[in-house]
Amino acid sequence: MTDNPDFHMSEEVFRQSAIEAVDWLIRYQDQLVKELPVLSRSTPGSIRDKLPLEPPGKGESFDQILRDVDEIILPGLTHWQSPDFFAFFPANSSYPAILGELLAAGLGVQGMLWATSPACTELETHVLDWLVDMLALPEAFKSTQAGGGVIQDSASSATLCALLAARERATGNRSNQSGVGEGLIAYASSQAHSSVEKAAGIAGIGRENLRLIAVNDDFAMSPADLAAQIAQDRQAGLHPFFVCATVGTTSSYAFDPLTEIGEICRAQGLWMHVDAAMAGTAAVCPEFRFIHQGIEYADSYCFNPHKWMFTNFDCDCFYVADRASLIRALSILPEYLRNKATESGAVIDYRDWQVPLGRRFRALKLWFVIRHYGIEGLRFHIRRHVELAQMFRSWVEDDDRFELTAPSPLNLVCFHHTSGNDVSRALLERLNESGKLYMTHTMLDGQYSLRFCVGQTHTEKAHVENAWRLIQAFSDDPESFRVD
Amino acid sequence: MTDNPDFHMSEEVFRQSAIEAVDWLIRYQDQLVKELPVLSRSTPGSIRDKLPLEPPGKGESFDQILRDVDEIILPGLTHWQSPDFFAFFPANSSYPAILGELLAAGLGVQGMLWATSPACTELETHVLDWLVDMLALPEAFKSTQAGGGVIQDSASSATLCALLAARERATGNRSNQSGVGEGLIAYASSQAHSSVEKAAGIAGIGRENLRLIAVNDDFAMSPADLAAQIAQDRQAGLHPFFVCATVGTTSSYAFDPLTEIGEICRAQGLWMHVDAAMAGTAAVCPEFRFIHQGIEYADSYCFNPHKWMFTNFDCDCFYVADRASLIRALSILPEYLRNKATESGAVIDYRDWQVPLGRRFRALKLWFVIRHYGIEGLRFHIRRHVELAQMFRSWVEDDDRFELTAPSPLNLVCFHHTSGNDVSRALLERLNESGKLYMTHTMLDGQYSLRFCVGQTHTEKAHVENAWRLIQAFSDDPESFRVD
Repeated sequence: MTDNPDFHMSEEVFRQSAIEAVDWLIRYQDQLVKELPVLSRSTPGSIRDKLPLEPPGKGESFDQILRDVDEIILPGLTHWQSPDFFAFFPANSSYPAILGELLAAGLGVQGMLWATSPACTELETHVLDWLVDMLALPEAFKSTQAGGGVIQDSASSATLCALLAARERATGNRSNQSGVGEGLIAYASSQAHSSVEKAAGIAGIGRENLRLIAVNDDFAMSPADLAAQIAQDRQAGLHPFFVCATVGTTSSYAFDPLTEIGEICRAQGLWMHVDAAMAGTAAVCPEFRFIHQGIEYADSYCFNPHKWMFTNFDCDCFYVADRASLIRALSILPEYLRNKATESGAVIDYRDWQVPLGRRFRALKLWFVIRHYGIEGLRFHIRRHVELAQMFRSWVEDDDRFELTAPSPLNLVCFHHTSGNDVSRALLERLNESGKLYMTHTMLDGQYSLRFCVGQTHTEKAHVENAWRLIQAFSDDPESFRVD
Repeated sequence: MTDNPDFHMSEEVFRQSAIEAVDWLIRYQDQLVKELPVLSRSTPGSIRDKLPLEPPGKGESFDQILRDVDEIILPGLTHWQSPDFFAFFPANSSYPAILGELLAAGLGVQGMLWATSPACTELETHVLDWLVDMLALPEAFKSTQAGGGVIQDSASSATLCALLAARERATGNRSNQSGVGEGLIAYASSQAHSSVEKAAGIAGIGRENLRLIAVNDDFAMSPADLAAQIAQDRQAGLHPFFVCATVGTTSSYAFDPLTEIGEICRAQGLWMHVDAAMAGTAAVCPEFRFIHQGIEYADSYCFNPHKWMFTNFDCDCFYVADRASLIRALSILPEYLRNKATESGAVIDYRDWQVPLGRRFRALKLWFVIRHYGIEGLRFHIRRHVELAQMFRSWVEDDDRFELTAPSPLNLVCFHHTSGNDVSRALLERLNESGKLYMTHTMLDGQYSLRFCVGQTHTEKAHVENAWRLIQAFSDDPESFRVD
């Protein structure tokens, strides 16, 4: 409902509604802890059933809208910000990030070109240079060198951009213009994220031309198998061009050996992309920088502040060591985007570093988070999460009913019930149905494994203890093992 | 600076900071009108020069951060929300949209799967079905039929997804798996958006395998030329598969004849994608629905509420008439994403409708906007914008110094100074340097043309009058014609 004859929301109503929304969010944090089941109990279609079939002819008040958020939307959410959320990976957020997103939405600027909002581009470049220092990444990734960083929506898009840059380099800058042709072969471990396969399909390489290299006992890529496969492909007249190495795989947090893979890539002239989507943030702490050993071989790299650095989705930081190769793959300059700054060559136009043209001011929230917490605050929380996960891991190790199914050195613990897959599956289902926590699963060496990932902003020791108590209680109760 | 020993921002500080941020945004609206130059006057590097080289070791207060937004960021912005912004296309926003973005950031849910937040998926499906009714689009686009809608970040990504779905269909579902091969040919008019060419490069088709079809006097695609080119390509043993038709081209707002193009596509078995990024919103008003004549032939379609429907970036609505073809092109299901809801087949997993995996809750802001304004309020503003542009157009037509360079039936007016390209270019530069408005240019039939696009949320008659006064004043002043 409008309070203005011109249908816009007035400043007064906006101010009051915003305060209501903020108070609603503060209450939400409280509800997350006290009452809401973590995993939504909605059945398919149940939310749509509560929504009117017809769009509203006349406007409605913000109070009505917010009431429907409470009554219709809230029960249909799975609460990623719950301190009892241990599923998938974290997608954490924080108050400073929310404030940054609020201002970015209000400013409503477009950062497709430097000229369309210089601060949107320069702040992004600057903060991404900061992060090179904060994570002790190679200097080559800095914009002051030949490389540079850019915010993508997700690691999937970063992987696609890396693959496109590699494809262009491997074809002597012809694939973009003339089509991809045949024979290009990409590599990743069998544990790599599905986005690598998806990107190979999108880029016209073909999913079957992505070789999934075998892993060792620790689920990390076997460099020997990689080398052998490359040799075999060359033998067959094919054209190896790209390797995606993972720092912290989605399934089990395995760390591909970057140095060995990097040496192979260098010797063979292959592009090495490193996907550290979740784990990368750990390198804020010097003691966890082992995860990036060999990163100096990388042609490109990404990690997601929207996973584990208190910056709400979307915010993936993507770096290249040679920005020219990325720009060659993605640049296009129609007349209506021509401008003096671009033609001067003195500026970055991020449109040429990504698939879409438009882009919002995502650097703002990342800047807010880094400034609010400082390196000190970020380290405090990353250390705390790893400590909590390691505490949980020690409990699993000490309980005969359970067994780790992967090395779990950081904030993800993979384990199973020793009675086998059906029991492990039933245990997970019962836990999630309780609403008191949410975990997900994976298969590791044929073992149905529960994944316990610590990384939510407000997860404290009590939440981890509570999760472990629940896991034990369900395991003690034979009824909970009834396999449907 | 943290007020908590755990470095998090407390609820109290968040509440207070959010109110400060909201008041800052309200003041910003006022500054937009009264003092800020629309086009930023920053020089390359000037914003970075004001930022500290080192990331902060210790946290800082929100007041400090907000002060830097004022002092460092604000002068570096080009103000897309200014009522005097007539450049490119609008990327408008509104208070209800900002509130939606605020809540989405605070909820921080991931909508990659139905199961990861059912309401995030179902609200999106529902609102996109509403929009089919609101724009009188074909029923086939509804999720209750064989089609469905999904929110993409931009029309660029929608075009890429359409191209991928078309590619997959044209290759008997082999391109994704085995690579794209050679001979696929796509078509768009010479006036189509650069994202079509970019997508052809990304998808491995090759930019040179996108045929840019000649346009008629009104800059709309010539169906005869399209048919002839397809015949010629078939003759040469090539495989025509995809046509992108545009409803409202970026340069001049030309409307490709969908019926004629659609009949060719149907007869030839080609996928027709319709890109109505900016213009589509006009169809909220029955009197402007002529722009969609022939839309029933479309296999896919998109328009951007983040351009002209008061919903801040990013929010592109992308529809397909046959969702199965889109899902076949983009689906991938690793073990760690398996879940009962997906396997039941009763739900939509939007991960399979887009390039990235993750997705935030963008439907919320779109729902807020539609509910706040109602159809009535949206129509009011679309009509007002078109009226203002048509008023401006009549002034151009009545002034001998100027000439329209394209038919300008809606909210974009293209014109030039009859003294030629150098004068038109100089005029535009002087206008933009004044800081009092911002327009951009394009080339139409060799004529350097000024583009005057009306679509900002708070653009009123006075702003358009003022722009015209400035254009006249600069044209009257010979000094402003000094060509450097």
